[in-house]
Amino acid sequence: MGKKIVIIGGVAAGPKAACRVKRLMADADVTMIDKDSLISYGGCGIPYYVSGDVSDESELRSTSYHALRDESFFEKTKGVNTLTSTRALSIDRKAKTVLVENLTTGTQNNVSYDALLLATGSSPITLPIPGSDADGVFTVSDLHKAISIKDRIAKGQVSKAVVIGGGAIGIEMAEALTDLWGVETSLIEYMDHLLPRTVSWTFATILEKHLKDNNVDVFTGEAAEEIVIADGKVCAVKTSERSLDADLVIMAAGVRPQSQLARDAGLLVSSSGAIVVNERMQSSDPDIYAAGDCIEVCHLVSGKRFHAPFGSMANKQGRVAADNMAGIPSTFRGGVGSFILKAFDLSVGSTGLSLEAALAEGFDADISLTSPSDRAHFFPTQEIIFLEMVFDRRTRRVLGLQGVGPMNDGLSARLDAAAVALCSGASIDDFGNIEMAYSPPFSSAIDGINAAAYVADNLCEKRMRQISMKMFCSYMEDPEIQPDWLVLDVRHVREAAPLVDHFGKSRWISLPYDEIRDRYEELPINKTLIIFCNAGSRSFEIQVFLDFVGRKNSLVLPGGFNVIHRMGTDWLPAG
Amino acid sequence: MGKKIVIIGGVAAGPKAACRVKRLMADADVTMIDKDSLISYGGCGIPYYVSGDVSDESELRSTSYHALRDESFFEKTKGVNTLTSTRALSIDRKAKTVLVENLTTGTQNNVSYDALLLATGSSPITLPIPGSDADGVFTVSDLHKAISIKDRIAKGQVSKAVVIGGGAIGIEMAEALTDLWGVETSLIEYMDHLLPRTVSWTFATILEKHLKDNNVDVFTGEAAEEIVIADGKVCAVKTSERSLDADLVIMAAGVRPQSQLARDAGLLVSSSGAIVVNERMQSSDPDIYAAGDCIEVCHLVSGKRFHAPFGSMANKQGRVAADNMAGIPSTFRGGVGSFILKAFDLSVGSTGLSLEAALAEGFDADISLTSPSDRAHFFPTQEIIFLEMVFDRRTRRVLGLQGVGPMNDGLSARLDAAAVALCSGASIDDFGNIEMAYSPPFSSAIDGINAAAYVADNLCEKRMRQISMKMFCSYMEDPEIQPDWLVLDVRHVREAAPLVDHFGKSRWISLPYDEIRDRYEELPINKTLIIFCNAGSRSFEIQVFLDFVGRKNSLVLPGGFNVIHRMGTDWLPAG
Repeated sequence: MGKKIVIIGGVAAGPKAACRVKRLMADADVTMIDKDSLISYGGCGIPYYVSGDVSDESELRSTSYHALRDESFFEKTKGVNTLTSTRALSIDRKAKTVLVENLTTGTQNNVSYDALLLATGSSPITLPIPGSDADGVFTVSDLHKAISIKDRIAKGQVSKAVVIGGGAIGIEMAEALTDLWGVETSLIEYMDHLLPRTVSWTFATILEKHLKDNNVDVFTGEAAEEIVIADGKVCAVKTSERSLDADLVIMAAGVRPQSQLARDAGLLVSSSGAIVVNERMQSSDPDIYAAGDCIEVCHLVSGKRFHAPFGSMANKQGRVAADNMAGIPSTFRGGVGSFILKAFDLSVGSTGLSLEAALAEGFDADISLTSPSDRAHFFPTQEIIFLEMVFDRRTRRVLGLQGVGPMNDGLSARLDAAAVALCSGASIDDFGNIEMAYSPPFSSAIDGINAAAYVADNLCEKRMRQISMKMFCSYMEDPEIQPDWLVLDVRHVREAAPLVDHFGKSRWISLPYDEIRDRYEELPINKTLIIFCNAGSRSFEIQVFLDFVGRKNSLVLPGGFNVIHRMGTDWLPAG
Repeated sequence: MGKKIVIIGGVAAGPKAACRVKRLMADADVTMIDKDSLISYGGCGIPYYVSGDVSDESELRSTSYHALRDESFFEKTKGVNTLTSTRALSIDRKAKTVLVENLTTGTQNNVSYDALLLATGSSPITLPIPGSDADGVFTVSDLHKAISIKDRIAKGQVSKAVVIGGGAIGIEMAEALTDLWGVETSLIEYMDHLLPRTVSWTFATILEKHLKDNNVDVFTGEAAEEIVIADGKVCAVKTSERSLDADLVIMAAGVRPQSQLARDAGLLVSSSGAIVVNERMQSSDPDIYAAGDCIEVCHLVSGKRFHAPFGSMANKQGRVAADNMAGIPSTFRGGVGSFILKAFDLSVGSTGLSLEAALAEGFDADISLTSPSDRAHFFPTQEIIFLEMVFDRRTRRVLGLQGVGPMNDGLSARLDAAAVALCSGASIDDFGNIEMAYSPPFSSAIDGINAAAYVADNLCEKRMRQISMKMFCSYMEDPEIQPDWLVLDVRHVREAAPLVDHFGKSRWISLPYDEIRDRYEELPINKTLIIFCNAGSRSFEIQVFLDFVGRKNSLVLPGGFNVIHRMGTDWLPAG
């Protein structure tokens, strides 16, 4: 036998590394250890298993050719010794052994290694509130919990549920409970909007409206303060504002790296608890590698380390770790935090930094908000996609892209192209020239990603002055905050008229786009005009023209009516 | 008035530049000239107008907010003087004037410029065969021809059509005629497969089968030799092999740059007839710019100039030209020839170089063919996507990516990400780590683009030895060409058994993937084993194992049954 490779962790990074290293060194003695009895499952698929889209949990543990990835599979097809229900207790780095305990028999023994991979994953954060350990409170952390959740629902034991946490997993679970099972579901987010730090308030508001339209009650800016128990089971969740009845509580408040084993072994661990590795996935002990949810990687925009607990990252890191254990100097440079989410009929996603994150990192950041068609606007299946491009005004570097679109792969196409560009430090100008494969059924001659960069260019060069969507909405709700503002609606009179009627000419006036050159002198000069159209592009043209004729008192509302409409604001009249 | 800008050409690059330059220099005197009466239309939408997906030609000339882009639109909303039905006859570079003729009145006059943009587009190639000017023969070059084609179909004058040219436009037109109108349509391609030089024989074969399944007759490797006329109208097309009846002939044999005006003015024009420009879209006369289909740009993989007549490229170049005419030093570095096509229920696309093109460019090129799921394989809507990644063995640089997938944006996502990476000279290793936004409804934990790079890596490092799909199919059709070959089917016995029965054990044997470690000694040692599974990944693992046990006489069939099945080969038994 060749080199002895021991891998701790049997989901994502672990199995990937085990199989790769065995393919690279067929004579290696590879042992994979996991404390769980179920391994190598698609954890990201749990919400779809709970919803019923995936009918049986075994599908999450099966290959595309329907082989179940259990111990026997890894042994017989991959040649990997696989010890499940076996916990790694400690590492003796000097002796190069791992002390393991068989959780079924209680037997302990040492497993020796030439190279060791820690793929110990992450653990869900349980909020330190009363009742968080009650029967009926679940995290979405492993397949056993998922099976229990689905079992309770299927047995009719769940009519009301509360999901704590408005991140991706919380939203996916809320959809799973509501959509197929009809469970009355509430979603609580402590921060002031869903997907905090990942997308803007604007996009979170579109998402929130869509969830509400699909019967998920959403409460943002509310902390879960207590889980109320009756008859030994959960019966409600108390927030700072209300009490919500619940037979089931899903706690989706994030995860943290599992690194106790590494820490106990004296390996370098970051302040956030992640095992520190280099680009070759080597920990501070050159014979010990780490990959997956238990490490941090370099954020290729901010330059700082960040925790990216995605199955896709884990697999890549597992492969790089395997290469290096086999003597191939592969590297994993880092990532940009690409993320995408299905929420009923919407897709929501992000890559790189949001505006909020970019400002927190110290960038001179701004954002372009656009609402173009996702394909040629004359193509029958076209729909609006919403994009926000975050950029640094000083260097013209693009820092991130967020999007909301229909439930198809159109948003992925923009995010994936952007992610690659972000990794190479692309500028606004580079984004303007990104070559998106074009024909009318797929994209438009000026793709949304290019148009977003064009707007960013105009903002950066101060050719365009904008008002943020949030500020505009605040103003519409309370005009007193800016009594000298006035909306100039440049859309067709037919579109503008109901709003002029509704708000009155002191707040909303109409002057169509194609008449502005002849009639601009009718516009009041003592007001700041907020130029309003469907997407923002006509508004920008009008602003350029008004500037030219010396009327520099205007702001463009980026994204325009398309965004407002989808946000479902209270102040917008129906119809 | 400020600077005098004259733009020749009113489709794509021309209008884009005209409007952008006017926004940058509101005081500029901008004149746009076009010989046609219809301008600023989405030429790429013509097949969808002919098909009826787009009901009226005016939709191709309208904005997303339903304004018709005619002369009045450009004058009133953009402030651009627009002269339609006006031909530019010559340029006097010394006097900085363009002599133009009003085609309605015959009046000629000189228009002076400070900066001139040539956006003269391309013209369709008319094959020099008898009858090519007959009534009923159309190119797909402008909206008038599109209107005439649709008019004839709508009037019931077309029951049979022949499309000459198996490139994108030919295929789109064949679909348009067949799908909604039920016209009996034949498609002729002179080269040995559809989309020659753009995709491989393998992918072209999948496409060809799909077109045939949708009632398009496809004849490859046949030249159109004569268009037969009866009663003054087309009645048939004669090829080297047959005569095909036709009331309508679409000639889609490619386009060439329109550069006569530039050439006559003494500007530098390439051997292929394209106006030579630098990255700032400047021709050999610094006051004359050119953009769109009339120029060549740098191919960012081959490093050579190439003609990329896409509306998406033209718009980007138009914007860059406008910037430079306004004193902003923007650049357009070039492109990688990204391309995507809807063909009934398939998407087919490419970015960068195909294997054929890469070999012709002198690269030490090879290709990885894979057939992964387009999203998590356990997600209900998953389908197979086919990818071919072209790479240089010497430098490990990725040179191109081609794909065939279901009719959604999943292929776009992979091509667009790849296009960005190709522009920065990305290696196989970079592609292995491309961060595709992941969740099960959108992609898989190891996305197809990453997996394609993994296979490329294994090929490059000679860990994997493969047989090309074309050679495998040749062998299956005529086993005598390699009598010592034998297919080793490692799929489930249930899947392999019908093929073992059909071909006999001298050509097709079954040994399941999970039994190989125990039973490999049963395999014959005097035969070259072609290892066969659904996608190729199990086959590779088996090859690695067989190598390890000293049986190095195997080849992997990349893409496996998934590809064979979709190609619809004659030798494969039904069922």
